[in-house]
Amino acid sequence: VTPEPGEAIRTVGEDRLVARLRALASRGLGASVVVGPGDDAAALRLPGDRLLLFACDMMVEGVHFRRDWATPEQIGWKAVVQNLSDIAAMGGEPGFLVSSVGAPGDTLSCVAEGIAQGLARAASEHGASLVGGDLVGSPGPLIVDVAVVGSVEEALMLRRSGARPGDAILVTGALGASAAGLAALLRGLRDDRRPEVAAALRAHREPRPRLAEARAIAATRLATAMMDLSDGLAQDLRRMCRESGVGARVWAARVPAHPSCQWVASLLGENALTWALAGGEDYELLFTCPAGAVDEIARSVEAATGTPVTAIGEVVEGDGASLLEADGRPLPWPAGFEHFGRA
Amino acid sequence: VTPEPGEAIRTVGEDRLVARLRALASRGLGASVVVGPGDDAAALRLPGDRLLLFACDMMVEGVHFRRDWATPEQIGWKAVVQNLSDIAAMGGEPGFLVSSVGAPGDTLSCVAEGIAQGLARAASEHGASLVGGDLVGSPGPLIVDVAVVGSVEEALMLRRSGARPGDAILVTGALGASAAGLAALLRGLRDDRRPEVAAALRAHREPRPRLAEARAIAATRLATAMMDLSDGLAQDLRRMCRESGVGARVWAARVPAHPSCQWVASLLGENALTWALAGGEDYELLFTCPAGAVDEIARSVEAATGTPVTAIGEVVEGDGASLLEADGRPLPWPAGFEHFGRA
Repeated sequence: VTPEPGEAIRTVGEDRLVARLRALASRGLGASVVVGPGDDAAALRLPGDRLLLFACDMMVEGVHFRRDWATPEQIGWKAVVQNLSDIAAMGGEPGFLVSSVGAPGDTLSCVAEGIAQGLARAASEHGASLVGGDLVGSPGPLIVDVAVVGSVEEALMLRRSGARPGDAILVTGALGASAAGLAALLRGLRDDRRPEVAAALRAHREPRPRLAEARAIAATRLATAMMDLSDGLAQDLRRMCRESGVGARVWAARVPAHPSCQWVASLLGENALTWALAGGEDYELLFTCPAGAVDEIARSVEAATGTPVTAIGEVVEGDGASLLEADGRPLPWPAGFEHFGRA
Repeated sequence: VTPEPGEAIRTVGEDRLVARLRALASRGLGASVVVGPGDDAAALRLPGDRLLLFACDMMVEGVHFRRDWATPEQIGWKAVVQNLSDIAAMGGEPGFLVSSVGAPGDTLSCVAEGIAQGLARAASEHGASLVGGDLVGSPGPLIVDVAVVGSVEEALMLRRSGARPGDAILVTGALGASAAGLAALLRGLRDDRRPEVAAALRAHREPRPRLAEARAIAATRLATAMMDLSDGLAQDLRRMCRESGVGARVWAARVPAHPSCQWVASLLGENALTWALAGGEDYELLFTCPAGAVDEIARSVEAATGTPVTAIGEVVEGDGASLLEADGRPLPWPAGFEHFGRA
C-alpha cells in the first residue's frame, strides 16, 4: 500500500516505506544489475579488465543543504552528482550507487520518496544505477550519504598526484555559479526568476557532473593530474599541489567566472572572482597537462562535449599556490570551505 | 603534525585531520588497492569472473550507539561488521570499504582517530581494506556510514528470495547475546566483569561477521536462501518470507539462545527467548535448505568453522511466520526493532 504523501515515516513504518523507496529506485535497472535493491547487497556485473573505482560523499542537513532551499528531489540529485563527479575526477565511468538515508521519525513520507526519486533520476540520467540503500532513524538532521562504484581503464586513470613543474593548470567550464546561487539563497532570493539568478540557483541546487568532459580529457592521454572542484579552486588546487609535491601560480584574470556568478555578484555588491576562486560545489574539473598540450586537449574536449576548457596557471617547483595579477603582483589567496569552521 | 588527542576537530582543521585519518586507514593495504585513501575515488583490482556485491549501512549516535557505552574503536568496528555481514549474507567475500563520518566540530580528534582505527582493524581482520572516506561536519549526532564492495561466484550466491515450502529454516551460532548486552548497558552494567555479562557486552559492542560460515554454507550448494540477522529473527524471518513468497513455522524450544543471553536474562529477570527472537545485531546467518540437506550442511559448516548450525523451523505455503510450542500451540510473535518506532 502506497503511503500518503503527508504521512510521517514514523506512522508509515519502516518496511512499508522501504518497499516504496525500493520500487522508486528500481525503475529501469539494466541487465548488469543481477540483484537490485531489497537483498542484503546488490550483485553487479562489471565490464572486465578495468579498475574498480569506489568513493562516497555525505550530505548533512544544515551543513550541505536546507530543506527550505531545495526540494527533496534536488537534495537526492545533488548527493548523487557529488559522487559521479568523484568518478569523473579519476577519468572513469560510473556504474552503480547505494545510498544511506538517516531521517527523523517525523519526516514526511513524500520527503523520503522525493529524495529517492532524485537519487534514482540523477543516477539514470548519467548512465548509472541506484542499486541499494539503508534507511535509518536520526534524532537530528536529515542525512543523505551516497557511495558509488565505477570503473576506468588503468592506462586512462588520472590521479591528483601527477602534476609536474612546467605543466599548465586548466579548468572545464566556468566557476562560481554555485556560490552565487548560495549567496542568492542567503539573501532570500530563493524563487527569483531573473534568468541569471535562476541559473545560479539551478547551478547550486542541480549541479551537473563533468563525466563526458572527464572521459574526453582522459582519452587524450595528455593530462597529468585531475580532480573535481567540490570545495572550491582555492582549497582544491592546494590539495592537488600537496599530493603532487609541487606549487602553483594562478593568473586571476584568467579564472573563468560564470556569467551568472558575475551578474549576481554585481546585483549583491559582492566579488565574482572570490566566488569563482573560493566557492565550492561547481563540480568542474581541475587538471594539468604539459604546456604544449593545452591546445590539443582544449580542442578535443570542446569537440566532444561543447564545454570550453581554460588554462588558468602553471605548476611550479616548491609548494603552495599563489594568485597573481596580470603584472605579476601577488593577490591574497582566498580561504575555501572548511567543514569544521576554525574556532 | 599529529593532532593532540584532546584537540577538538574544529581546531585541528579538516585537511590535517583527514591526512591523519588517511594514514590510520592506509596501513597494510594490499596490492589490489591501486589507489587508496586520498584521491577522488579508490581504484581497485577485483578478481575476474565474479559478481560484484555492493551494500551500505549507517549508524547514528543515539539510535545505534552511545558514546558512553562504546569506545570510538568499537563504534568503527561495528559499522564495518554490519557491512561485512551483508556480504556474508549473499555468500560472498568482502573486498573493500569506504566510510563517511559526520561529526560535530567539538568532537575530539582522538574520537575521530579511534573510529578510523576501528574501521580499519575490522576491515583488515576480515581480509578487507578500508580504501576511502568522507569527513563532514554535523550539527547533530555523530554519524558513521560504511559502504562495502565484495564479490561472489554467481553460482554460489544466496538471495533472500529462494526459500521454498518444505525447506528447513536454520541459524548459525546462538542468538540474543547482543540484546543481553544492550539490556545490561540499559541497566548501568557497562563495566561489569562477570564473564557472562562481559560476553554479552562484547557481543553487543564488538560483533563478528559470519564470513567463513557463509562461504561454507554457499560452498555446499544446498542452501536455498540466506540473510543476516541484523534486526532480529522475528523481523528478519518475516522479510525472508515476504521476499520468497512463503510462510514459516518456528519451534520456540529449538531457537538457540546464547548462554550469556540466558544468564543475563536470569540476572535481570527478563525473558531470554524474547531476546533471542526479537533482539537485533547478532549478525548470525538465517538460511534455508531442503529438509534432507540439514545434516550435511550442519556437518560442513561445523567442520570448516567450528560454528554450530541449528534447524529451528520449516518453510510453509502461505505468508507470515508463526512461533509454536513443542506441542504445536501458537505463541505470540515478538516485535523486532523498528527504526522509526510507531507513533
